Amino acid sequence: MPVRSVQRTMQRTIEFDRDVVYLIDQRRLPATLTVLACRDCRTVGEAIRSLAVRGAPAIGVAAAAGLALAARAAAAIAGNNRQRFWADLEEAAAYLRSTRPTAVNLFWAVDRALAYGRGLGDAAPGVVAEALWQYAQAMAEEDVATNRAMAAHGRDLIQDGDGVLTHCNTGALACVDYGTAFGVIRAAHEAGVRLHLYIDETRPVLQGARLTAWEAVRNGIPATLIPDTAAGYLMQQGRIHKVLVGADRIAANGDTANKIGTYQVAVLAGSHGIPFFVVAPTSTIDPSIHSGADIPIEERSHDEVTHIGGVAIAPPGIGVANPAFDVTPARHITAIITEKGVAKPPFTDSLRRLVEGG
Amino acid sequence: MPVRSVQRTMQRTIEFDRDVVYLIDQRRLPATLTVLACRDCRTVGEAIRSLAVRGAPAIGVAAAAGLALAARAAAAIAGNNRQRFWADLEEAAAYLRSTRPTAVNLFWAVDRALAYGRGLGDAAPGVVAEALWQYAQAMAEEDVATNRAMAAHGRDLIQDGDGVLTHCNTGALACVDYGTAFGVIRAAHEAGVRLHLYIDETRPVLQGARLTAWEAVRNGIPATLIPDTAAGYLMQQGRIHKVLVGADRIAANGDTANKIGTYQVAVLAGSHGIPFFVVAPTSTIDPSIHSGADIPIEERSHDEVTHIGGVAIAPPGIGVANPAFDVTPARHITAIITEKGVAKPPFTDSLRRLVEGG
Repeated sequence: MPVRSVQRTMQRTIEFDRDVVYLIDQRRLPATLTVLACRDCRTVGEAIRSLAVRGAPAIGVAAAAGLALAARAAAAIAGNNRQRFWADLEEAAAYLRSTRPTAVNLFWAVDRALAYGRGLGDAAPGVVAEALWQYAQAMAEEDVATNRAMAAHGRDLIQDGDGVLTHCNTGALACVDYGTAFGVIRAAHEAGVRLHLYIDETRPVLQGARLTAWEAVRNGIPATLIPDTAAGYLMQQGRIHKVLVGADRIAANGDTANKIGTYQVAVLAGSHGIPFFVVAPTSTIDPSIHSGADIPIEERSHDEVTHIGGVAIAPPGIGVANPAFDVTPARHITAIITEKGVAKPPFTDSLRRLVEGG
Repeated sequence: MPVRSVQRTMQRTIEFDRDVVYLIDQRRLPATLTVLACRDCRTVGEAIRSLAVRGAPAIGVAAAAGLALAARAAAAIAGNNRQRFWADLEEAAAYLRSTRPTAVNLFWAVDRALAYGRGLGDAAPGVVAEALWQYAQAMAEEDVATNRAMAAHGRDLIQDGDGVLTHCNTGALACVDYGTAFGVIRAAHEAGVRLHLYIDETRPVLQGARLTAWEAVRNGIPATLIPDTAAGYLMQQGRIHKVLVGADRIAANGDTANKIGTYQVAVLAGSHGIPFFVVAPTSTIDPSIHSGADIPIEERSHDEVTHIGGVAIAPPGIGVANPAFDVTPARHITAIITEKGVAKPPFTDSLRRLVEGG
């Protein structure tokens, strides 16, 4: 089932229209803004696996949308056979969970949507499918509201004259709209705070250079793109005053899995006395995981390291390591900004209060 | 004066043959091994400026070779007019010094060759020119001997089972032959030490991915290429036991300028309790510079960050910072390995003893 690219003006990273889920193809940015039209679950799943859609919150909503597409297809085949319908839906859920092993939002969104459907009791498959379709759209709306709330909680952390370093992409492209860490930065900028954004290019997939730089230009935020190798130098020169990053999964103790390179930026920030903030919705917190040691780290294709834009940059025969994530121990984190408030150390207590208090 | 690419089997990075200086064009590696034939000073200078030849020791020898080509051309024009000959030669020296502002070996080699020529007293321009041509070749031989001596001094620092991280390229390509930090690693490997080399790809110019990986494969050294973002993660995982890097300039107090990214690797090594070694010939030490604060940092073209292999990876309109070097304060350095021995802290004393003792 080939993915169709279509002409469409996107207000958000993920949009719903009748029987189609539209996704901005982030692999093609910044060269072209290409839109994928997904009409079935597997197309959405492949978009997640191939990084056409990425960013923990966006992956969650896309997965819920994929599950809704699967539910519609299953309902069309199963008719009133509820057992068959649910068997197909569980299979689709298992497939979606397999597309990215580290992002907890993926599991969270799939499980939440499944539970919602199960909660409808004896409803006919067709009714459940339509409810799941609405539910995915509600999750998209919720994501935008969550990001706005995080921005409101975090905005005042950034002061006039601050140089702010970020890693990877946590903007509108990582979510349905607005952004997590980038949303906080954007909100400060929109509130008139004079800040300068430094963007780690974020090898190997270059989400910083390709996506965050693109969002900074679009939003008129004064920004400088740097090689990942220059982050420590800029800290040494006194040009970085805050670091803000997103998260793919946060353990109960505050240990945070995020894009590879986040850990070393956190260590460097600490050794320069620079506050290091994580900005993530409470859906990223996984209370079932005690510490970061239990978070699986996805190893991605070696081509991401040895090729850029299809051009080989390394010789044949060289070994490659390409861990997609790393885990930043909680002791390196100044605070975690969520939609329900700001958690400070010790995180085991503060995160539990936020999650349970919601 | 277009640079000619020629067919030639190179035993070394820089070779001399009658009236031609041959250089491996390192911009084209690892895709093709292209050889540049330089017949005049400006062609050599442009090769240095454009990174066709790079690496502090290689730049030094190439500059001496460029000066010798300039001397021959000046002698041909000046005949027995010594004043005119020396004016032309000083102009060529000033041009060569301008091609890379941070590499002290460049200044060292040019000044040393000029002093050698001046030391010939009233010799005719043609005689001086031929002497400088021989002198550049002697510097090439000296570089190889220096690297072998550094390898002998440093080899025992690496033990069976060590994971060794290196940054940028310090192999045969950075020198005339063998290498500085890579030379030490290579010597340990050749002595039968079971080590595993981790290679930072070294954005933006990717000397690690393009050059060090190529040399590791050629020399049969077990090696893994990593994105610069993964260095901290591998240290956290206990896979790195030693870090070895080269140097572009070392201040009297041991502060070391090297490829951008070296500083943060040094900080990360320190925070993980991993020894951090600098391997560089004493010609890299600049006793006239008290500390790293006085070392100028070259800012290179923004295209190096925004384009890879001619492909744009960042949107138009984004600001860019591209410092080519950073300075690692001496307190992060475990030891400095030179051809005259190993200097340990406090470096102000140990480096002076090595330089004066030579």
